[in-house]
Amino acid sequence: MHGSDEDLLMIPGPTFIPNSTLRVMSRQMISHRGKKFGEILTECTENLKKVFRTKNDLFILTSSGTGAMEAAISNIVEPGDKVLCTTFGKFSERFKLIVKAFGGVPIDLTFEWGDAPDPVLIEETLEKEENIKAITITHNETSTGVRIPLDEIGKIVKKHDTLLIADTISSMGGDYIPVDDWKIDICISGSQKCFSLPPGLAFISVSEKAWNVINRTKRRAFYFDLPAYLESYKKDPPELPYTPALTFFYALQNSLKLLLEEGLDSVVSRHEKLAQATREAIKALELELFPKREDICSVTVTAVQTPNGVSDKELRGSMQKDYGVLISGGQGKLKGKIFRIGHMGQATDKEILTTIYALEKSLKKLDHRIELGAGIEAAIKVFT
Amino acid sequence: MHGSDEDLLMIPGPTFIPNSTLRVMSRQMISHRGKKFGEILTECTENLKKVFRTKNDLFILTSSGTGAMEAAISNIVEPGDKVLCTTFGKFSERFKLIVKAFGGVPIDLTFEWGDAPDPVLIEETLEKEENIKAITITHNETSTGVRIPLDEIGKIVKKHDTLLIADTISSMGGDYIPVDDWKIDICISGSQKCFSLPPGLAFISVSEKAWNVINRTKRRAFYFDLPAYLESYKKDPPELPYTPALTFFYALQNSLKLLLEEGLDSVVSRHEKLAQATREAIKALELELFPKREDICSVTVTAVQTPNGVSDKELRGSMQKDYGVLISGGQGKLKGKIFRIGHMGQATDKEILTTIYALEKSLKKLDHRIELGAGIEAAIKVFT
Repeated sequence: MHGSDEDLLMIPGPTFIPNSTLRVMSRQMISHRGKKFGEILTECTENLKKVFRTKNDLFILTSSGTGAMEAAISNIVEPGDKVLCTTFGKFSERFKLIVKAFGGVPIDLTFEWGDAPDPVLIEETLEKEENIKAITITHNETSTGVRIPLDEIGKIVKKHDTLLIADTISSMGGDYIPVDDWKIDICISGSQKCFSLPPGLAFISVSEKAWNVINRTKRRAFYFDLPAYLESYKKDPPELPYTPALTFFYALQNSLKLLLEEGLDSVVSRHEKLAQATREAIKALELELFPKREDICSVTVTAVQTPNGVSDKELRGSMQKDYGVLISGGQGKLKGKIFRIGHMGQATDKEILTTIYALEKSLKKLDHRIELGAGIEAAIKVFT
Repeated sequence: MHGSDEDLLMIPGPTFIPNSTLRVMSRQMISHRGKKFGEILTECTENLKKVFRTKNDLFILTSSGTGAMEAAISNIVEPGDKVLCTTFGKFSERFKLIVKAFGGVPIDLTFEWGDAPDPVLIEETLEKEENIKAITITHNETSTGVRIPLDEIGKIVKKHDTLLIADTISSMGGDYIPVDDWKIDICISGSQKCFSLPPGLAFISVSEKAWNVINRTKRRAFYFDLPAYLESYKKDPPELPYTPALTFFYALQNSLKLLLEEGLDSVVSRHEKLAQATREAIKALELELFPKREDICSVTVTAVQTPNGVSDKELRGSMQKDYGVLISGGQGKLKGKIFRIGHMGQATDKEILTTIYALEKSLKKLDHRIELGAGIEAAIKVFT
């Protein structure tokens, strides 16, 4: 838990950072082309591969997650190349914008915000349209609280000559995403979500199938040019092509140690439990989850419809001002219509209960009819 | 000065970070779209404009300096566009590589490593070649220790319908670079050099003349798309388009406070004095500066020819192992032929004297004939 001078950060990233990680960030600089950094880079990369459950190459970029999304597209897409973009929220739409920015032609497969892409429709599109170079998909749509059946989509893509590019920015390190088993060719994540780090590092894994495409693509990329990373990683000592954010590598080292010490499966169960407790609390308060069905609800962020008659601004304002709990509103067309509770990274039952308490009290204060304590009770039932 | 458990970092970046900056990096996360971050962003941007001595727009990117170099090129250059690239070292060559990566046609104006671009030749090229969209130039070539007469080049470019793109990554915040007076259309810097911060933030200023070009360019950019930054900065509260490296903004706030408290002119004089003391010490030890002439020597990094009969590896190895002082070797074709001493950021006379002492002792140990103490004496004379 936080000290009382800071808001409890229950937004879907950045997440709060444990003290042991905060402490290592005050370490002095070292040479980024020396032996010491080579060891840190190797350790971080190997441990990240464990989290990604992959034997593919994996690189660490100094950028936010969007930088890794761009890396995926700019290394794959030449002007005129077709990319199947599934869109069902703000972040899945971002992929489409990046494809356009790099001259690609997005084949748009749009689903309602709050819904998940239908694997059947994806399969139909892949069979109908020729020469689709890649498909972009967001595993965990932070803007709508939806998690999609990525394993099923992996099975479909595997049968086609196309690459599966998955954004797991807000789920990797919290949810179960076996990159190799699910045949994800390019898998992307970022530091400021389940890894409980500051924003500023991004992670990208690249399969052999993806390398074959990258190597014959005329790439419009330099800072994010993946072959340059591969080459630098092979040096002795291993290094990165451009000066990396050293401080965040110290922090990543610690964060991965914490994840592996807890055990990756335990980390996933904890997130599942946090999500379930949050959902049960929401339902007990007779509020509506935003995702269309409970089986597509994210385990790292819960999106809830703002109840009729309650102002989103006042609700979140009261939670922050009166109870020191910061949650998020809706983005884009969902602004004012939903609120979102992040429960990822180092979050535990204590933070969830504090958040539900603040939610109940704030709803009550705004004259919304709820049974005070019902949410807390439902959440506790999940935790015990 | 450092504690004895760490090497004294006298490489030309990353530079060592003062304790007050290290401490703020252990602060907890906040929302990157809230009022508090908006205030930090505004303060940092306004203070950076003071350092850049500019009224132009200025943006802070979450990337290393190379990201800002790419931003400059990818927002300006369409396939087929001609860019005059002055090259005289590793970093000025990088601009040429980025221009090529984005489909531009570099007009190569190459000078010997250790020399500076000749303004007369630049003027001739601009008059001879038509439709040169931009000229790239490295103010302070970290790989050779050369600083160029950027003011003179600014005067020439001003008379032509072309943009001046300047990399001041290893000089801004240490050297005198008035962006507006010198007519620099796009000026780039990074956090890990004179700003005494970790790598991971880059800065880019954009003139009105540059905006006119950017706005009519079909840009292959997303993460570094400058109009997206302009739009986000205009929001209330101001924000960044993609999740920024919050921790480094806390640090930047402190770093800029330190620079402005010392006074920008005093900071420049201090760097000039550090450079002069280093050069006088080198000359007193009868070693050769690498730059062709002393008037093109950098004020933030001094490059020295490794004396005949001395192994670069052994020299730097002894300085680190026996005296805890880390300096850099040569890069690319200068590997083994020169060594480089960084004196930027928070460096003072104490660090220079320690470095010269380690250099003298190590040269002596390697049986190179020097007058022990002559370097120290020459440096002290400059400082007093």
